[in-house]
Amino acid sequence: MDKIEHIGIAVKNLKESNELFAKLLGVPHYKTEEVASEGVKTSFFQSGPNKIELLEATNANSPIAKFLEKKGEGIHHIAFAVEDIVKETARLKDEGFTVLNEVPKKGADNKLVAFLHPKGTNGVLVELCQEIKEA
Amino acid sequence: MDKIEHIGIAVKNLKESNELFAKLLGVPHYKTEEVASEGVKTSFFQSGPNKIELLEATNANSPIAKFLEKKGEGIHHIAFAVEDIVKETARLKDEGFTVLNEVPKKGADNKLVAFLHPKGTNGVLVELCQEIKEA
Repeated sequence: MDKIEHIGIAVKNLKESNELFAKLLGVPHYKTEEVASEGVKTSFFQSGPNKIELLEATNANSPIAKFLEKKGEGIHHIAFAVEDIVKETARLKDEGFTVLNEVPKKGADNKLVAFLHPKGTNGVLVELCQEIKEA
Repeated sequence: MDKIEHIGIAVKNLKESNELFAKLLGVPHYKTEEVASEGVKTSFFQSGPNKIELLEATNANSPIAKFLEKKGEGIHHIAFAVEDIVKETARLKDEGFTVLNEVPKKGADNKLVAFLHPKGTNGVLVELCQEIKEA
């Protein structure tokens, strides 16, 4: 785990929250990206070495739609940068954590990602992410 | 806002969670600290330029005890490092955010801290923190 890569925040209205977080962080979001497979539209803000990712659901079956329904707006997950996601998920599985994506999947922001089940991490949804490098 | 200084996570049992997060992050916590005025005992882990702060309540009136009762274990707040907390809280107040501590207070880890009300930040409890430097 090299650093906190980003914090994911579930919001109802991406446009309004982009304006709010631009005021909060003092910088505008630098990109938006839709991840159709996850049913989310995301925007990213830079904060020094870290990022803030806002997440809006694009359909009712999106994990973000379910999160909003159950818990309301707020912090959804914490993502750590790793050098080698396959090695790191194997290490965590050996340590007893429940890895939800044994085969890492393509996430937003040019990343391979895998999640750990929050029941094994004090209620925190943990994402691991590895930058996808061109061969 | 210079970076994510730390993420605060509310836990029921600091000792057990210290072991869990040591496995997760691959490093042990580097210190524990009690903040009597807040009714919390904390521990800190380093993750590159960022920290993870675990928070256990030390009495039933602690904000962490109330959080655990209402929401269970999980991410409690996100803290951003700032150079000048007085200037930054004034800026945020001007932008329409509700600053809960107009006079910053002494927090854990040698910091002056101030919180923003989560109702104005999409449900996210935001902390600003400034390192206290010796005169």
